[in-house]
Amino acid sequence: MKLSENIQKCNLSPMRKFHPYAVEAEAAGKKIYHLNIGQPDIKTPEAYFQVLKGFEQPVLAYAPSPGLPVLVEALRGYYQKIGVEFEAGDIIVTTGGSEALQILMLCILDPGSEVLVPEPFYPNYNTMINLAGGTIHPIPTTPEEGYRYAVKEKIEGCINENTRAIMVTNPGNPTGVVLSREEMRVLADVAKEHGLYIIGDEVYREFVYGDGPLASMAQFEDVEENVVIIDSVSKRFSACGARVGALLSKNKGLMAQAMKMAQSRLSVATLDQTASAALYGCGPEYFGAVKEEYKKRRDTCYAMIQKIPGVVCAEPQGAFYMMAALPVDDAEKFQLWLLEEFEDNKETVMFAPGGGFYRTPGKGANEVRIAYVLKEEDLKRAMELLKKGIETYRREVMHV
Amino acid sequence: MKLSENIQKCNLSPMRKFHPYAVEAEAAGKKIYHLNIGQPDIKTPEAYFQVLKGFEQPVLAYAPSPGLPVLVEALRGYYQKIGVEFEAGDIIVTTGGSEALQILMLCILDPGSEVLVPEPFYPNYNTMINLAGGTIHPIPTTPEEGYRYAVKEKIEGCINENTRAIMVTNPGNPTGVVLSREEMRVLADVAKEHGLYIIGDEVYREFVYGDGPLASMAQFEDVEENVVIIDSVSKRFSACGARVGALLSKNKGLMAQAMKMAQSRLSVATLDQTASAALYGCGPEYFGAVKEEYKKRRDTCYAMIQKIPGVVCAEPQGAFYMMAALPVDDAEKFQLWLLEEFEDNKETVMFAPGGGFYRTPGKGANEVRIAYVLKEEDLKRAMELLKKGIETYRREVMHV
Repeated sequence: MKLSENIQKCNLSPMRKFHPYAVEAEAAGKKIYHLNIGQPDIKTPEAYFQVLKGFEQPVLAYAPSPGLPVLVEALRGYYQKIGVEFEAGDIIVTTGGSEALQILMLCILDPGSEVLVPEPFYPNYNTMINLAGGTIHPIPTTPEEGYRYAVKEKIEGCINENTRAIMVTNPGNPTGVVLSREEMRVLADVAKEHGLYIIGDEVYREFVYGDGPLASMAQFEDVEENVVIIDSVSKRFSACGARVGALLSKNKGLMAQAMKMAQSRLSVATLDQTASAALYGCGPEYFGAVKEEYKKRRDTCYAMIQKIPGVVCAEPQGAFYMMAALPVDDAEKFQLWLLEEFEDNKETVMFAPGGGFYRTPGKGANEVRIAYVLKEEDLKRAMELLKKGIETYRREVMHV
Repeated sequence: MKLSENIQKCNLSPMRKFHPYAVEAEAAGKKIYHLNIGQPDIKTPEAYFQVLKGFEQPVLAYAPSPGLPVLVEALRGYYQKIGVEFEAGDIIVTTGGSEALQILMLCILDPGSEVLVPEPFYPNYNTMINLAGGTIHPIPTTPEEGYRYAVKEKIEGCINENTRAIMVTNPGNPTGVVLSREEMRVLADVAKEHGLYIIGDEVYREFVYGDGPLASMAQFEDVEENVVIIDSVSKRFSACGARVGALLSKNKGLMAQAMKMAQSRLSVATLDQTASAALYGCGPEYFGAVKEEYKKRRDTCYAMIQKIPGVVCAEPQGAFYMMAALPVDDAEKFQLWLLEEFEDNKETVMFAPGGGFYRTPGKGANEVRIAYVLKEEDLKRAMELLKKGIETYRREVMHV
């Protein structure tokens, strides 16, 4: 029996690759500080669970394919507050931001199509784009330039006749880069001039540690036909397990096609949608407190990593990740060593090796993504372990 | 901006096509009996809601990509009872049976691949297969032969170098056909001889109105490399809104590929998985009562439709659908007329016109799918409306 060529081009998740070694290390009595996955430890708002406890319908029925009206309305209200007027027909509720990406890629890519994505990027983009027959054309960046990419000439240099879209995670995963208003304008202009979709994966929108209002590509009205937004409650409300996201666009032709796929998979989980709608009742005080907590963690993490000799890392301005180049020969080898050989008081640390976030072969080999999702005391200890690990590894393995 | 060729080949759901006309009819004061969608009115077992009420974890976190262990174990236990030993690695929990189908098609089809599917078929297969670049090659059937298809020569006549799989819904949607043991063996033999996947979409497994044990393609051990099972809690436990299904196969190579896609979409909703695991605690008395209820409905429905002159309909033996050829010129035209022109004491009826269940142009034009998902008194009234509707339509519209 045959397997498809597209799936064979895909890889397992680099965030989960070292899981078996972690299990072994834990079985051997080591405590591991997990900075490898973006699973926050922030409490999910109680409103979510209250809805579940109060659910009284005797039959757990299908929801409408485009989403439960109560959640669609909650999303409309949320976007109105940031100055974007979406009609109900501009929104399809999806099973996490992940399904929004899948639907979108299958609607806009043909075999051979290319999507421009700044590199390093969220590795699951690769799978979603490959399965639609397309490939990622990376927009190159460097740790020394703080992974910034929104330069007109740089992006235009990547465009060819197969280019269908520019896709950015903003705030950035894995880099923590936050686009300025001017940089977003650059992207909008390029998309407009070249007739490309501009896809804003904005699931970390609230997690920006500077001042200023919340930003969305959807705020650029002159490119509303080009703009597609990927959204989710996962990070916004620390509700990753709800699997509730959305695909949003004012491009009616695109949304009509997306609706075919939405209908074919029937609906998104009814109770999770109902409960997610209640999350949108969380006000500025909720977001303020969560942002404050992450900002503290970012500050701690960045202050500590800067003190490790040889590390290259720009201060991340958003999301809850930072990407850093380490003074090691190979981050995967180093991670394996941390799990198998290293310990400090029976403890070690895990991050996501950088290579999996790149498409260009060899790039990211000495880089890591650090998810600062742990509470501060754990984060401090984890960074201390990283520092000690690097020192020991350089001395004992690299002999430098 | 371009749209993919694959999505443009897809259609909206035929089950939902007449929804706008139904809304208008209801606004005009008509009551509609809905036999058009497979949304049962059976109560979801209380165990589901009890789990939600008792959930105490403060953070609604991602579940593991292949599924929550408690649910994977529940599925293993369920299959053991019907004589099938699945290992944990043979199971990937999915967002409904729909996601299992999507993952599978993207893993096994290349552009130009064909999947043999008995016609009429569940229309969403079309979308899932088209989006993976494939097409359905229909295995023809007729209402006069009771839509049976498991004949070796008939199936082999459809195989060519592009054929990758044979896919059957058993018990059947939309036909209610249940394969005999001998017919399943025919399918297994053809798959084995021609090196094809044999996909058993068995989400209606419990709904069989004859005697005998529950059947699964997975029970044929000599073809375990070929067999893929699509499963779901939606119909089994009247929990359509849970969106919890599974992809099951002992083909390790296939499951390794499927895992890439499972990881890329992260996980299935955590609470729905936890609650679905509890559903598997329902015992024979639950299934017995539900089956009894559906059998009564089937009997009522079939007894009444047989009495309508000119209708061709074999007694359905499973699921909760029947397909019937009506003595009308065009089932879509007739459905529209039922909504817009017809009424009996301010009431009318809806079904799913048959054309959308066929790929062969023109086939199914005078057929309808009837979902007997309403309680008996409503079902009786709905069938009475169908009878009166046919009589009036023939007299006033067809002038016969």
